[in-house]
Amino acid sequence: MQAPFSTLSAFRDVLAAAAGPDADALKGAQDRNGQLTKPPGALGRLEDLAIWYAGWRGNPRPAINAPQVIIFAGNHGVCAQGVSAFPSEVTAQMVANFEHGGAAINQLAQAFGAKLDVHALSLETPTADFTKAPAMTAEDCVAALQTGWNAVDPSADLLVTGEMGIGNTTSAAAIATALLGGEAGDWTGRGTGVDDAGLSRKTDAVAKGIALHATDDPLEVLRCLGGRELAAMAGAIAAARHHRIPVILDGFICSAAALTLAKAVEGALDHTVAGHLSAEGAHQRLLDAMGKTPLLDLGLRLGEGSGAALAIGVLKGAVACHSGMATFAEAGVSDG
Amino acid sequence: MQAPFSTLSAFRDVLAAAAGPDADALKGAQDRNGQLTKPPGALGRLEDLAIWYAGWRGNPRPAINAPQVIIFAGNHGVCAQGVSAFPSEVTAQMVANFEHGGAAINQLAQAFGAKLDVHALSLETPTADFTKAPAMTAEDCVAALQTGWNAVDPSADLLVTGEMGIGNTTSAAAIATALLGGEAGDWTGRGTGVDDAGLSRKTDAVAKGIALHATDDPLEVLRCLGGRELAAMAGAIAAARHHRIPVILDGFICSAAALTLAKAVEGALDHTVAGHLSAEGAHQRLLDAMGKTPLLDLGLRLGEGSGAALAIGVLKGAVACHSGMATFAEAGVSDG
Repeated sequence: MQAPFSTLSAFRDVLAAAAGPDADALKGAQDRNGQLTKPPGALGRLEDLAIWYAGWRGNPRPAINAPQVIIFAGNHGVCAQGVSAFPSEVTAQMVANFEHGGAAINQLAQAFGAKLDVHALSLETPTADFTKAPAMTAEDCVAALQTGWNAVDPSADLLVTGEMGIGNTTSAAAIATALLGGEAGDWTGRGTGVDDAGLSRKTDAVAKGIALHATDDPLEVLRCLGGRELAAMAGAIAAARHHRIPVILDGFICSAAALTLAKAVEGALDHTVAGHLSAEGAHQRLLDAMGKTPLLDLGLRLGEGSGAALAIGVLKGAVACHSGMATFAEAGVSDG
Repeated sequence: MQAPFSTLSAFRDVLAAAAGPDADALKGAQDRNGQLTKPPGALGRLEDLAIWYAGWRGNPRPAINAPQVIIFAGNHGVCAQGVSAFPSEVTAQMVANFEHGGAAINQLAQAFGAKLDVHALSLETPTADFTKAPAMTAEDCVAALQTGWNAVDPSADLLVTGEMGIGNTTSAAAIATALLGGEAGDWTGRGTGVDDAGLSRKTDAVAKGIALHATDDPLEVLRCLGGRELAAMAGAIAAARHHRIPVILDGFICSAAALTLAKAVEGALDHTVAGHLSAEGAHQRLLDAMGKTPLLDLGLRLGEGSGAALAIGVLKGAVACHSGMATFAEAGVSDG
């Protein structure tokens, strides 16, 4: 489907016009949950997840049959500041690895029955170094949002957005600093594993970016400090809302991209859950600011959508219980 | 396979004679992990899990193709003390629900590709009320351990042991109190959801049981305060060690059953991981005492092996990444 916007302002209007969950399906799912053969509340968070999923799918007894994982890849001019332990060429090398099935996300997508799509966004033309200029022009940012929007399969029933982009924890830290306040050092971490000197250069780069691009407009923050793969994730998350496809957010970078939507329009992430808590230092604080509690906490910090893909299993389990279990009446079990 | 013991003492000898993980497979898996296309450590706990699994399977590049979930069911004489929100007849009703595919564990086993077996242990003859007599005779306890041992499929490559037994959080609390010390109230929780008066009766029953059966012999504790399904879980966990099948422990009751093995022979649970943190109050403290960190923390408190079954997905994801990913050399990716 072609993205129904061609400017940042129109994108914001699309976000603001998005509908909420289906009230009847929510009510039906809540009623069903109360009748299933288990003590009330004994499936804990799985019960909340299943009801939430049912509401967004508009079906009180839904199934998850067609998860989609999309990885967006981009390169970052800010790498010139020495912010990463890996060279920018790794982005394209890892895209080839995704395409040949050799990365972690390939194994996880297969393990949880998800389709995997990979979109490389102009890797040969990195975004501008945000310590010196806006990372993207408005046209470039809109094009990336559109790429993300158009990448979502309307027939998917669950979406994971992942990323690959050497330097992109620097962008994510800059976005978090711009939209949530505090110092650059509060949001800047070691990413793929920079040493102390690298961390210091990275923190300086974030601080310079914040000083140069003095705006609190969330989509302007995305344009000036983000990257193409971050904008594409934001576009995909918005498209999923349009198609009533629930989304599992991945780690720090995905969360920062998503944050721009939540700051642009309140409630824009209501169709999303946080898949996991990343080991990247500031992710807990970022999720707290977003009001999201992660499903998993296993010390991952890889990106690629890996933590969110692992959480597909949790969501599949939740929905399978909800939709497949017998009721007390059906099973002839005494309900206490 | 017929259980190679016919007394509690012989069972302890079998436990003590069990081998450790395969050192060559551990080393091979560690080496492989260091070459995979990801920053070092970026898959967090998944890396440790995969290496641990490889060691126990004796294969540096293993696969999980045949998980087995076994539910053991038993009834408890201590229910006469008014310790549960549900009547004992629910145990048999839930066994029928398992057999007809209507319970949560049926959906979870199916979602994660596990075979599900159900063993009901003499439901029509509850164990003795442990506030008045030992729950089981030595013969009865050995028979339950043997049932558990024999229930394990030697061709399985991952095991989850679950349980169903109205009243069995009371047994589990009594075992924990006997083996770990403290007061009955420290280990007694609401189980399926008893009210304050029920919780008080339950705590009193645990205290009476501890006073009556003054022993710190772990297998005697299992016999006097446990139940047939707890003994069967212990037997199955021991058999899995014998067959080099890694085990995912479920919640409070499964953990208490497993604790008797760890207290009987140091290291007897090295082939196990804790699948999840149950919402049953004392589970965190019990896992701390066992030195186990749970994989999931989603507020489940259902039993049936449900939390552990959900964690099959995590372990499958870990092993899929480890065994399926390309190395830096294979993928032509620069390794920083």
